[in-house]
Amino acid sequence: MEEKIKKVIRDVPDFPKPGIIFKDITPIMMDAKLSNEILDHLVETYEGQGIEAIAGIESRGFLFGYPLAMRLGIPFILIRKKGKLPYDKISCDYDLEYGTATIEIHTDAVGHKTKVLIHDDLLATGGSAEAAARLIEKAGGEVAGFNFLVELEFLNGRQKLDSYSKNISNLVTY
Amino acid sequence: MEEKIKKVIRDVPDFPKPGIIFKDITPIMMDAKLSNEILDHLVETYEGQGIEAIAGIESRGFLFGYPLAMRLGIPFILIRKKGKLPYDKISCDYDLEYGTATIEIHTDAVGHKTKVLIHDDLLATGGSAEAAARLIEKAGGEVAGFNFLVELEFLNGRQKLDSYSKNISNLVTY
Repeated sequence: MEEKIKKVIRDVPDFPKPGIIFKDITPIMMDAKLSNEILDHLVETYEGQGIEAIAGIESRGFLFGYPLAMRLGIPFILIRKKGKLPYDKISCDYDLEYGTATIEIHTDAVGHKTKVLIHDDLLATGGSAEAAARLIEKAGGEVAGFNFLVELEFLNGRQKLDSYSKNISNLVTY
Repeated sequence: MEEKIKKVIRDVPDFPKPGIIFKDITPIMMDAKLSNEILDHLVETYEGQGIEAIAGIESRGFLFGYPLAMRLGIPFILIRKKGKLPYDKISCDYDLEYGTATIEIHTDAVGHKTKVLIHDDLLATGGSAEAAARLIEKAGGEVAGFNFLVELEFLNGRQKLDSYSKNISNLVTY
């Protein structure tokens, strides 16, 4: 599965700025067969593991997060960028290379002690995933794990996350 | 189906500004049974209709757009906000109430004359959907239709779209 996905992910040099090689996952979405294989793989991985909800981080975390939740028959929680969620919400800031960003969750999106798997397309430095974990806990849930399509291992993002859950997995590693 | 969805959609008064009643669809995502029923309904609607790709508008258009494409076995095209797509791209501006917004598509995301269904969660004034249609055509594709979860009929968004395709459908009307 990893080699198959790597063949499709596209390296885009100098995005979003000079010197960065961006891993473009959009060709995966153009390939329906591979997309279904990835989704089947995620379903097999998390079926029967006691996960009670999936939280996806806007916006690429919505791509596999929601279909996975539908296939597992459990709620999908939207974690969105600041100002996008309309109802009562909780916010969390996290550091970017320059400045900070904020993500939010609806206060009623997570049931008490619900076991939530946090999903995003990419684990880089782990800042947004850690902020998502804090949001899940503030909202009353428990972090049952993290799942990413791609991990950039050299950025050590897992170090930020393993105090929330040791259950961290990804499909592709660079 | 419409009544079932309307029971779940939440009215949020004064969002994003005073006097607007926002239709919050996030409770649909919390309801896995309803989510699967909606997806099944969309699959039944578009199966065998000659649709060759689905384009979803960031970010709520990703929610049902990608699962629908996966179920139909066709490519999913991401239409994103300015600056988010990493590769060679085409841009299109559209008017907001105050100022303009820009959406983008990868130049290689649409095959020549590919019949594309444009999907988003909400048809309001139709500005972003029309911009999406222009992007699909600029990229070499054909607009085979538009699909929305919710239409705000009193805003007459269809008027902006029917020169691209008469095939405009939605699940819920207000």
